[in-house]
Amino acid sequence: MDFRKLSIKELNRISVEEFKQSEKLPLTVILDNIRSLHNIGSVFRTADAFRLERIILCGITACPPHAEMHKTALGAEFTMEWEYYADTCEAVKKLQAENYKVLAIEQCEHSVMLNEIYIDTHEKYAVILGNEVKGVRQEVIDMCDGCIEIPQFGTKHSLNVSVAGGIVLWEISKSYLSIFNK
Amino acid sequence: MDFRKLSIKELNRISVEEFKQSEKLPLTVILDNIRSLHNIGSVFRTADAFRLERIILCGITACPPHAEMHKTALGAEFTMEWEYYADTCEAVKKLQAENYKVLAIEQCEHSVMLNEIYIDTHEKYAVILGNEVKGVRQEVIDMCDGCIEIPQFGTKHSLNVSVAGGIVLWEISKSYLSIFNK
Repeated sequence: MDFRKLSIKELNRISVEEFKQSEKLPLTVILDNIRSLHNIGSVFRTADAFRLERIILCGITACPPHAEMHKTALGAEFTMEWEYYADTCEAVKKLQAENYKVLAIEQCEHSVMLNEIYIDTHEKYAVILGNEVKGVRQEVIDMCDGCIEIPQFGTKHSLNVSVAGGIVLWEISKSYLSIFNK
Repeated sequence: MDFRKLSIKELNRISVEEFKQSEKLPLTVILDNIRSLHNIGSVFRTADAFRLERIILCGITACPPHAEMHKTALGAEFTMEWEYYADTCEAVKKLQAENYKVLAIEQCEHSVMLNEIYIDTHEKYAVILGNEVKGVRQEVIDMCDGCIEIPQFGTKHSLNVSVAGGIVLWEISKSYLSIFNK
């Protein structure tokens, strides 16, 4: 079979204006004290790719615009909606008041393995990615409606945070793919 | 429900020695001219987490040990098996001679969408991640047994290469999870 690479034009990506007006997945990403500008930028790029509705930046997580973040966000920091909360708990509280199911990506007692999650596409979700070293803080986890764990079988404790985010956002987004394929 | 964070001890990660002796997924990652040491290191970390058998570094892709790569690999560059080929096509040829199905991660005509791939767990696979700007080269793609595309709905052309790798390796690894859960 001929696997000819598609040109940028053939990818038919939407414009910033079209993106802003398009239907989004009811899925918000919360960044709880992410230190690395590369990781923040990379999450913006992933969120743009899966057309998520919003990123909530919390605590020490830097906000756009930022030259270093731009190196990995590549402009997605200008298409994605974002908000900032000094206190991650406040963000969780607000989302739950709006009927979001808030899920921490963390290795916890009673975590649900990512290959076993059930996504109800009539619900709205928010997932929390935690600090590179400390993960999601226990006080934030204590407020959550659930925890998702990525099964891991290696020597390291965890995946890179932007990679973990990509994997979880892909897995959840898959449940909603029909929105964009109709 | 109580979502108590697990301690590092409770994660029960295996040691480097156990890792080296453990059964791996029959899945190899080929890095075709990856420029960023952060991306290379991050792929090492992902490959360790999913207990892949090997990483093949090609062309300008840097080899361990490297201080800058270590910042994202965090030691996974010492657990993972790796090989180097100056020419990516040589690596593909060798793997195909060993009956691997070699799949490029690329947006091509006739690409299979990642949510529609079929993995035969009796087969061995290799996936190719391409350069940050140019992707997988057409001459490499032309040798492949297939192309996998991650469905994307945003304004950007593509995901970060280590994030794309994480997503694809997770999706393929899922098919083999029973190996580690038995």
